[in-house]
Amino acid sequence: MLDCAIIGGGPAGLTAGLYTTRGGLENVTMFEKGMPGGQITQSSEIENYPGVTGEITGMDLMMPWPEQCQKFGLKHDMVEVKRVSQNEDGMFVIYKDNGSTEEAHSVIVGTGSTPKRAGFAGEDEFFGRGVSTCATCDGFFYKGKEVAVIGGGDTALEEALYLAKICSKVYLVHRRDAFRSAPNTIERLKNTENIELVVNAVPDEVYGDAMGVSGLRVKFKDDTTRELPVPGVFVFVGNDVNNQVLMQEDGSFLCDVNDWGEVVVDISMNTSLPGLYATGDMRIAAPKQVVSAAGDGAVAALQVISFVDEKLNA
Amino acid sequence: MLDCAIIGGGPAGLTAGLYTTRGGLENVTMFEKGMPGGQITQSSEIENYPGVTGEITGMDLMMPWPEQCQKFGLKHDMVEVKRVSQNEDGMFVIYKDNGSTEEAHSVIVGTGSTPKRAGFAGEDEFFGRGVSTCATCDGFFYKGKEVAVIGGGDTALEEALYLAKICSKVYLVHRRDAFRSAPNTIERLKNTENIELVVNAVPDEVYGDAMGVSGLRVKFKDDTTRELPVPGVFVFVGNDVNNQVLMQEDGSFLCDVNDWGEVVVDISMNTSLPGLYATGDMRIAAPKQVVSAAGDGAVAALQVISFVDEKLNA
Repeated sequence: MLDCAIIGGGPAGLTAGLYTTRGGLENVTMFEKGMPGGQITQSSEIENYPGVTGEITGMDLMMPWPEQCQKFGLKHDMVEVKRVSQNEDGMFVIYKDNGSTEEAHSVIVGTGSTPKRAGFAGEDEFFGRGVSTCATCDGFFYKGKEVAVIGGGDTALEEALYLAKICSKVYLVHRRDAFRSAPNTIERLKNTENIELVVNAVPDEVYGDAMGVSGLRVKFKDDTTRELPVPGVFVFVGNDVNNQVLMQEDGSFLCDVNDWGEVVVDISMNTSLPGLYATGDMRIAAPKQVVSAAGDGAVAALQVISFVDEKLNA
Repeated sequence: MLDCAIIGGGPAGLTAGLYTTRGGLENVTMFEKGMPGGQITQSSEIENYPGVTGEITGMDLMMPWPEQCQKFGLKHDMVEVKRVSQNEDGMFVIYKDNGSTEEAHSVIVGTGSTPKRAGFAGEDEFFGRGVSTCATCDGFFYKGKEVAVIGGGDTALEEALYLAKICSKVYLVHRRDAFRSAPNTIERLKNTENIELVVNAVPDEVYGDAMGVSGLRVKFKDDTTRELPVPGVFVFVGNDVNNQVLMQEDGSFLCDVNDWGEVVVDISMNTSLPGLYATGDMRIAAPKQVVSAAGDGAVAALQVISFVDEKLNA
């Protein structure tokens, strides 16, 4: 019987593990099928985690985290979790990929989200080395340079506006000539001088060499092409919230999620179901930054400690 | 004219500075009269900031933060801010201690809170070396040892319960024999075997040597005393929210605060006043941890970047 089951081993899950175990909970397991560290481990450089400076890869940043948690007793089960449910007696049940189950008094979920890829040539090859899905994370690496943004929805437009303040020019590549976004956002886009709209166009191939990306070729509806000589390409064509573990056998979710599948939480990461907490990129209004995901993990852990104590001692 | 004024130079303010400047805002000033770093710089050891391991003081932890921000253009004004107000045209005005003012499109406040001291002999001398005001931060350093908790309110009781899971014994020292707390919390307290109530008693003196605290003498109403041989003393006798900069000349606050003076924010650190954000220990439901304050700063900064862009380009 676990005091707390943590699903996911990114910055949120690891910090939740640190704070629950250091706070005195003795039976805490983090379920993460792969190496802990999360999505940031795919980044070739991170310079905005407070207090960690110098040229450092995402992998380097996350290196010390698992050991820091394990020192306080966090256990790591390298297995995929298929589903989290709740019994009639209020206990949570963790259904593992290998067919076994485990019970827990509380659950912190931090399984993240997965930015969709657009599916053009070179996209995977250059991912993390010139192709990015996060302007907040990587925009600054292209300060004073030109970049391309792929997409035409709200996120693509907001991120293009963010990049326009840092980069000398932003090409916004969109398959249609109309944008699905708030009128105010479209207005700001059109008022921003260094954004060039490249519409009725899809990315065809991103290319470069061992040093990274040197350009993007886009193809128009009439099959003509254009070369954009950019060192950075930002792809915003949707985002899958990794909420599968919360989906029950009848297709409902264990707690409230919004229309985009993001888990609804309050300011302390409480979901609509007592004892269940959601953290990091999978929750509503997630800033999708390592430091904020870690902050979520700490907050959720402090909630768990009180919840479990109340459950066992009240 | 500033894009953003950041009031306070702790983990929240510094991270807000990092994210606003790295996000392309060119005129951002952090107002902090002292050395940046915040309250944590008084701690002799911190081991729960994710990714930073080893025996490290609060001062060491915060050492690289200011430089990391200044690299992206954050300016530091070493002055005390007396008040933040808003003009009729929507501009924020920063009133400085030296009589001058500065205008800003947006403001992030992160001035923290100040735990009250109980006022007994040795309390200040041993603060950060055996006397603490944060169980989440320092409880683990007394794992398997005995500690004393001073106070009888909600926070004191919750923190005593937290410590009881880590420490071999918790002496709860309270000046009365009744507690001001939720019935459920008092019930849990009484059900916890390793908490001993030391009531009708006040701390008289904490003592020790260069290595730290070795004991606490308490004095009862009848003037008898008792020695508690503890290496750790946790003081929870109230908390002053540092919200003075938000208080206007008529005594009202610039934005909504709750009954305890904490600033009301939503999950993205928006206060009730557009363009004004509150972060870290001064906000509602603050976990009072470096990593969560830093997370707040990042979130608020991302809000500011959109807010300023909308204000200037819509």
